[in-house]
Amino acid sequence: MSFHVNILTLFPEMFPGALGHSLSGKALDKAAWSYNAVNIRNFGDGVHKSVDDTPYGGGAGMVMRPDVIEKALLSIKKPGRKIYLSPRGKPLTQKDVQALAATPEITLLCGRYEGVDQRILDAHGFEEISVGDYVLSGGEPAALILMDACIRLLPGVMGNAQTPDEESFADGLLEYPHYTRPAHWESADGTAHDVPEILQSGDHAKIREWRRKQAEEITRLRRPDLLDK
Amino acid sequence: MSFHVNILTLFPEMFPGALGHSLSGKALDKAAWSYNAVNIRNFGDGVHKSVDDTPYGGGAGMVMRPDVIEKALLSIKKPGRKIYLSPRGKPLTQKDVQALAATPEITLLCGRYEGVDQRILDAHGFEEISVGDYVLSGGEPAALILMDACIRLLPGVMGNAQTPDEESFADGLLEYPHYTRPAHWESADGTAHDVPEILQSGDHAKIREWRRKQAEEITRLRRPDLLDK
Repeated sequence: MSFHVNILTLFPEMFPGALGHSLSGKALDKAAWSYNAVNIRNFGDGVHKSVDDTPYGGGAGMVMRPDVIEKALLSIKKPGRKIYLSPRGKPLTQKDVQALAATPEITLLCGRYEGVDQRILDAHGFEEISVGDYVLSGGEPAALILMDACIRLLPGVMGNAQTPDEESFADGLLEYPHYTRPAHWESADGTAHDVPEILQSGDHAKIREWRRKQAEEITRLRRPDLLDK
Repeated sequence: MSFHVNILTLFPEMFPGALGHSLSGKALDKAAWSYNAVNIRNFGDGVHKSVDDTPYGGGAGMVMRPDVIEKALLSIKKPGRKIYLSPRGKPLTQKDVQALAATPEITLLCGRYEGVDQRILDAHGFEEISVGDYVLSGGEPAALILMDACIRLLPGVMGNAQTPDEESFADGLLEYPHYTRPAHWESADGTAHDVPEILQSGDHAKIREWRRKQAEEITRLRRPDLLDK
């Protein structure tokens, strides 16, 4: 099984971007995932290949036309799950990422300018997903984030480099703090920073308990909203 | 005034990535922003330029060493606000983005593997920021998102292409839906989709009221948590 991502975009040259390097770049070379960036511009209207127009009801900015986007969408044989990346969408969670990474085919629609005509979303049943409560220059950076999160979960991609079972959100908590060598470290200002003794004790039961408590404490302190879920 | 981003990373080749294109690419060419990707590997230990080691207390994966990261950090003359990108951090909001975009100098620390030794964050007062409740392959994709969100707000970058005043989160609400031409559109399955009549009425007071109600309704439906803030 592999993971294929269709991307509807006005900037196909933004892909694979950072995903062409490191873990995801190697996985791309091994064909653990693949992508197809469809340039919406190619389906534009008239000599100027126009893809947008002014908004009905007035206001600044331009809106991407539903008919043009539909033509681009219909050029994809098997779109699979259709997702529009937008700050109006459902906030992406690690659970969503796990489900998406197990989907063989997805199509990501990247908006630019003021966004896309609402009717294309309604007519073709696009899910709306948000990667966070901030506004980006377009859907492309959001698509890259969503793809990165999925790709690292694909079989064989991470190897032993990371451990999804113990990371943040795996048990609904933020992760405990990490420490490595040197055990005794003096920062540049001369202050001593030692690794907590318990982590050097070799007592695995106590270490597990300490880590659990740390994870609970940092979650309560920083993200009490996660504990209510 | 310009916006300068220092990036501490093991993958400097990931930058500028998607930010080299479109609005942010043009802004980079005009020097509206600049970046300096510092390769942490150059400050690694011994012949192998080692940057990480096994975690104290056991567990899979590797942790990035505090002494190596500190050397990389100290190579930056004016680090400004120091930020570690991590799912354990404060969730990034549009307000944070506005404040960051007004900061002339920031330094982003990108973790890989299991993350970084907690002591480097404590010793140098790194803020921890999360771009969302999901796990990425490393801090680099998160750094790119944060930078994209900031860059579009820099003076002269957006021009009239977008309007920050009316977008999502500007008034604590998700944005109302957009419509453009054609007013009457038949999707490929023959269904008719018309632009709401009120948007074609020319009655600006009524249009404003309709949009406000739409924004409130979609926020209540999708993100009631935003209304409590």
